[in-house]
Amino acid sequence: MKKIAVDAMGGDNAPQAIVEGVNRALAEFKDIEIELYGDEAKIKDYLTATERVTIQHTDEKIDSDDEPAKAVRRKKKASMVVGAQAVKEKKVQALISAGNTGALLAAGLFVVGRIKGIDRPGLLSTLPTADGRGVDMLDLGANAENTAHHLHQYAVLGSFYAENVRSVVKPRVGLLNNGTESTKGDPIRKEAYSLLSADKTLNFIGNIEARELMNGVADVVVADGFTGNAVLKTMEGTGLSIMGVLKEAVKTGGFKAKLGAFFLKDSLYHLRDLMDYSAAGGAVLFGLKAPVVKCHGSSDAKSVYYTIKQVRTMLETDVVSQLTEVFTSKED
Amino acid sequence: MKKIAVDAMGGDNAPQAIVEGVNRALAEFKDIEIELYGDEAKIKDYLTATERVTIQHTDEKIDSDDEPAKAVRRKKKASMVVGAQAVKEKKVQALISAGNTGALLAAGLFVVGRIKGIDRPGLLSTLPTADGRGVDMLDLGANAENTAHHLHQYAVLGSFYAENVRSVVKPRVGLLNNGTESTKGDPIRKEAYSLLSADKTLNFIGNIEARELMNGVADVVVADGFTGNAVLKTMEGTGLSIMGVLKEAVKTGGFKAKLGAFFLKDSLYHLRDLMDYSAAGGAVLFGLKAPVVKCHGSSDAKSVYYTIKQVRTMLETDVVSQLTEVFTSKED
Repeated sequence: MKKIAVDAMGGDNAPQAIVEGVNRALAEFKDIEIELYGDEAKIKDYLTATERVTIQHTDEKIDSDDEPAKAVRRKKKASMVVGAQAVKEKKVQALISAGNTGALLAAGLFVVGRIKGIDRPGLLSTLPTADGRGVDMLDLGANAENTAHHLHQYAVLGSFYAENVRSVVKPRVGLLNNGTESTKGDPIRKEAYSLLSADKTLNFIGNIEARELMNGVADVVVADGFTGNAVLKTMEGTGLSIMGVLKEAVKTGGFKAKLGAFFLKDSLYHLRDLMDYSAAGGAVLFGLKAPVVKCHGSSDAKSVYYTIKQVRTMLETDVVSQLTEVFTSKED
Repeated sequence: MKKIAVDAMGGDNAPQAIVEGVNRALAEFKDIEIELYGDEAKIKDYLTATERVTIQHTDEKIDSDDEPAKAVRRKKKASMVVGAQAVKEKKVQALISAGNTGALLAAGLFVVGRIKGIDRPGLLSTLPTADGRGVDMLDLGANAENTAHHLHQYAVLGSFYAENVRSVVKPRVGLLNNGTESTKGDPIRKEAYSLLSADKTLNFIGNIEARELMNGVADVVVADGFTGNAVLKTMEGTGLSIMGVLKEAVKTGGFKAKLGAFFLKDSLYHLRDLMDYSAAGGAVLFGLKAPVVKCHGSSDAKSVYYTIKQVRTMLETDVVSQLTEVFTSKED
């Protein structure tokens, strides 16, 4: 039985969306048990699952505008912190939250803890590609600064994730750079390029440019946290702007445009689904002693369900133990 | 009379698209004179303009896969290099090329030269926003590394550009960062934040996230060249991927989808126009002693025409002399 802690109070649609996602996951997966952290009365309003689920009542919660590290230190009774503590004490095997990202990163690092030998856990998400396969990118912003050595570790982490969680055989790893030639980039990128080339356990395919990210040229792409964060947000922002402009054009385009949109409905849905990352689950703070996964703040029940599914796969393939083994043996 | 050098041999559609763009610009603007650099016979195949245009024949040209700095040093007779030389010798006032970006940057820096006091000229483009106003972003990749001091100079450069070339009153300047709070980012961003806040000649509005770039929250956004390059390419790649998926969906969606696309045609064209940056002109290597502007490699005659229009505005407002004055007085 896989035991997963879920913060019921995090995100814009909590606790309803969170609890409804849990209901769906429990109905589908018979090998998981969910521990919900949050306001018991409010949770019960939506909880229809009756078995393999428990509620740990908490009065406190971390708000989206709380200062992350401080909130984790001071709000010891907050749903997210109590959940992280349960992971640390091995009462549960993983933690999911749609709450304050910074606070979840802090709870992950300071309560759950890093795998020995991993200097900087990275935030990893599976981003959409036009061919529908997706690409695992990290670091998406857990760190504001990174060294070449960190980028090398991200490559190892990303490969492990793609291989175990997404069943990609020999994942193609690319280094995000400002050109494809091997001599491109700043000193960090140049050093990372040689570290990645020298590591024969990786299927390193060289530098890739952000323009190619959605083309499916790589299965894993590594970047420093600052650039990774900017790329992720640009992708989201551009996608939302385009869809917004298209919607507005249909709305103001009169009868003809509305008729067109009606006939084109299926194609537009297809596009929306492609840009919707939620089926791949949430963003993993990868490199910790247990899976700690962030759902988007605006997650609906479906995203929560998919994130539980993702965490279930991570537990099933035991990807964290495998990582631990690799990094522990490197340390020796 | 404004004299502009145009490299006829650069870009995927040279010399045809270049020369056709020149024809159109000469017909429209009576106060410009164009000097075309390249293969005389090939240029004449497309040149219909008969006045205010001269051809400087060159046998050599820089190819897209030439190593930039080396090419500029060795191919002294290449159309792009001869054009840059003409700017240096003040025979012409500006240079436009759709050729090898790195080589144009090198020709700009080493042949045309920096304005005294500007450490690192930045590559600036007007990127599309959903409200159609556009945002000037720099550095888009002229440099792989930048200090906080460079970011401060970019803010001054970007403000000058927005105000003079795009007639934006008191341009709102944002700092690209991984969060909006003033304490966000790596040490470079934190230092840049205080430099920008302290400069009362700027209308600094604080940190902005890449997600907001297309929302029109700022008129100018400054970034280091590595991140700026990644953001620009992500925007291009995401836009192209979305349009590609939509096209594919229409193509394979049968009669219904095709009918839909037909009725929605105007709205889709509107979207395409929004994502098409070419009406704002090319990318300026800003901070040089004269305007040096890069057209996209895949430029058509329309983009070339718009870039000439942009350079004409830069010459008309004398933005480079104004910049020179500001930076020279700072040096004193």
